[in-house]
Amino acid sequence: MAEEKANILVVGSGAIGAFYAGKLVQSGAKVDLLCRSDYETIKSKGVLVKSIWGDFHYTPRKTIPFDKPDPGEYDYVILCTKVLPGVNVPSMIRPFVSKETSIVLIQNGIEIEPPIAKAFPDNEILSGLAFVCCERKAPGEIYHTDYGRLVIGLYPRGYSSSATQLVELFRSSGVPAEVTEDVKTARWAKLVWNAPFNPISVLCKCTTDKMVSNATIESVVRAVMKEVVTLARLDGSPLSFSIIESHIKDTKVMKPYKTSMLLDYEAGRPMEIEAILGNAVRKAEEFGIEVPHLKTLYGVLSIVEQCR
Amino acid sequence: MAEEKANILVVGSGAIGAFYAGKLVQSGAKVDLLCRSDYETIKSKGVLVKSIWGDFHYTPRKTIPFDKPDPGEYDYVILCTKVLPGVNVPSMIRPFVSKETSIVLIQNGIEIEPPIAKAFPDNEILSGLAFVCCERKAPGEIYHTDYGRLVIGLYPRGYSSSATQLVELFRSSGVPAEVTEDVKTARWAKLVWNAPFNPISVLCKCTTDKMVSNATIESVVRAVMKEVVTLARLDGSPLSFSIIESHIKDTKVMKPYKTSMLLDYEAGRPMEIEAILGNAVRKAEEFGIEVPHLKTLYGVLSIVEQCR
Repeated sequence: MAEEKANILVVGSGAIGAFYAGKLVQSGAKVDLLCRSDYETIKSKGVLVKSIWGDFHYTPRKTIPFDKPDPGEYDYVILCTKVLPGVNVPSMIRPFVSKETSIVLIQNGIEIEPPIAKAFPDNEILSGLAFVCCERKAPGEIYHTDYGRLVIGLYPRGYSSSATQLVELFRSSGVPAEVTEDVKTARWAKLVWNAPFNPISVLCKCTTDKMVSNATIESVVRAVMKEVVTLARLDGSPLSFSIIESHIKDTKVMKPYKTSMLLDYEAGRPMEIEAILGNAVRKAEEFGIEVPHLKTLYGVLSIVEQCR
Repeated sequence: MAEEKANILVVGSGAIGAFYAGKLVQSGAKVDLLCRSDYETIKSKGVLVKSIWGDFHYTPRKTIPFDKPDPGEYDYVILCTKVLPGVNVPSMIRPFVSKETSIVLIQNGIEIEPPIAKAFPDNEILSGLAFVCCERKAPGEIYHTDYGRLVIGLYPRGYSSSATQLVELFRSSGVPAEVTEDVKTARWAKLVWNAPFNPISVLCKCTTDKMVSNATIESVVRAVMKEVVTLARLDGSPLSFSIIESHIKDTKVMKPYKTSMLLDYEAGRPMEIEAILGNAVRKAEEFGIEVPHLKTLYGVLSIVEQCR
């Protein structure tokens, strides 16, 4: 496949989907893009990416509208949509999934793979995490302002040659991508950061620098992180509690950053409350432990969403 | 005193101060009003109260500006200001306090009396709670839209004839006022309601009905209330946990209500975060117990305030 390049469907033309689809196009893959609201614009004008790695413009091989799927055979179907309740992802991607297809989730949250794995029991599921500051300023117009690393691995864990090949593709267009053999733990590690900073940023309408320059909020951030690390460990992921200090230290030195949840909130889009907080709270119930800080944020965010 | 009526200074011409000062004027007391920003308006035009109990207009006997105190002898100095850090209340009221003066706090929060009691060790301290929906729409313009009950008692507890006399004065103008011999417990009981609903209303920008029609938020509200009841009991106040159910039930049937903290937030005024949440969190530290829900709300509200 490395020779003939891969056939790829990227699902979702938001910031993450449209950005990484473009990097895959640059790597020489055949990339189709499944779009919802941005279909008409991207179909006629392609996608413009303003990136710290260099601006570029691309046109997907095929631009496919959500409501009129044009079935195809793909090596990879890469999910880059937000993880939201009420979206039937399996039925959306079914026309594009054949026996050989690897389904890849490049999405936030935890416990987001099981519904996909259940709907496609014979397919390989890859799970991935994007560490990137990307924003969709308009349909087909993406701003990549910082970072960009991808971590991809077989779900729930283990080695997969197709994960390696996908990572190679990304690397060949300059994306710092890595394979992990324990993506569940990588996902928990990212949640340790997301679980406090995403919701608090929405409540405070502020960037990361503000959140780590206040002793009271820092103590709440630490408390939420501790609950997430505890959950991760109960889930069999060998996370060390020292990740808390390193996340906080990193956040203190990184450029002030507006979380994806705050961007969603400000743009009037639904927030990934369930994937980021709800699933963690439910995991705690399953394990029979108390996660009062997580639960408070979850409760408050749910009603922020409801009262919008 | 019931014969010759009382000499009273009301401190603060916000919603609570200007409203209850008016009721005391109606009862025949000699009422002076200490004002900050509203001084000029009230000095020249008095105060207009639009009330569900009947509209009225009054002029304080004296309108006194904060910055040029005109000392006087008072039976009661009634504090109706917001409880905010950085305001030196003792020095503000000292010119008005003589040996016989009862200092009355009609304010929100807990642990707000000690600084006053310490500054005036020889004076009687009365502490009071207002259960009222009142809003200051403009300087000297108060809207009383619901409720109005007052509970007043000797601080920290016990019987006081001046509390009884003050309550009688309020009653004679139609205010449903009561004496309590355990005002600390009454204050904790009110905090059980305020501690969840005030901050959550600010985070969600919503009225009480919204907060009690969402199962997730209701579970957070209950968890916060449970922490406050636990603190109250450790503080020697015999509150029953059943107050949680009755507060929630009452909130479900009451008219949708915008909390004072949300009104302050929307008007760009400082919020009583320390009096309502900070003092409770510090009480928990003193007792050595964990109050994670309270602490999360406290942390988030602190940064909301900081990022405004």
